[in-house]
Amino acid sequence: MLRTRDITIEEVPLLRRMIVEFATFERLADQVTITEEMLARDIVGSSPRFRGLLPEWDGQVAGYAIYFSFYSSFEGPGLFIEDIYVREEFRSKGIGKALMAEIAAIALREGLVALRWEVLDWNRPAIDFYKRLGATFLDDWKAVRLEGEGLRRLAGITQ
Amino acid sequence: MLRTRDITIEEVPLLRRMIVEFATFERLADQVTITEEMLARDIVGSSPRFRGLLPEWDGQVAGYAIYFSFYSSFEGPGLFIEDIYVREEFRSKGIGKALMAEIAAIALREGLVALRWEVLDWNRPAIDFYKRLGATFLDDWKAVRLEGEGLRRLAGITQ
Repeated sequence: MLRTRDITIEEVPLLRRMIVEFATFERLADQVTITEEMLARDIVGSSPRFRGLLPEWDGQVAGYAIYFSFYSSFEGPGLFIEDIYVREEFRSKGIGKALMAEIAAIALREGLVALRWEVLDWNRPAIDFYKRLGATFLDDWKAVRLEGEGLRRLAGITQ
Repeated sequence: MLRTRDITIEEVPLLRRMIVEFATFERLADQVTITEEMLARDIVGSSPRFRGLLPEWDGQVAGYAIYFSFYSSFEGPGLFIEDIYVREEFRSKGIGKALMAEIAAIALREGLVALRWEVLDWNRPAIDFYKRLGATFLDDWKAVRLEGEGLRRLAGITQ
């Protein structure tokens, strides 16, 4: 049986282990630089940088979800789902969908207008699942990221 | 001469007019459903849903920028740039880059690791400009959005 609860600071070490598991599944394990200290710092406070859900299947931790607020200047506020991860032995039980449904319910309860997330273009089963939910794919938008040296140069801190 | 300051609640009517101008430029004016009331509600408080910058060129409002915090579970917190808009008569003066540089400086000052934003795939001049900044394009990710009836159905509110 599934029970879902908020992730607390005590579960940060477990959360970080599952983030690495998820990154490994996504073939991106070399990109994980986040530390337990950062996660602990960012999940607490009156306005935490992210919020998380922990699904338990018969008392065993089955994965995690992480989400945070985003803002559309055209439509208003929503929740961005950063990760939905279900551990291998708990798949095909509807846990991923239950986590998304929980975040959808949180969004509506908070008066928000939309959910957003991203999916790897080779992850066909996930893409098909999202289509069945009625999601829109923003295919004419490219996601861009700037960090490290490029970020410091733009800020005028280095030449 | 350029001077940039934070957008305040008093400037919300002007901000909404410029959002519509920007949406018209992006051929998306029919997507703007945000109201002045929503913008006013969301820009205030100890943890506003978004923050904004207003560039003035010789005392005239030349555009706007809107940004908010995002969270990468792999790398940590950053700022997401929702919009950078420079009004037509103020283009080619480096105002867009100055706004991005200001947001980059805010990110570094707040100890954040990255900027993110999105660009329409037909906006070649913008894409080339971002490449010159050293930005990474996350070409294998698709952006997904769920709202309205699909969101309510996922939340279990309607069948």
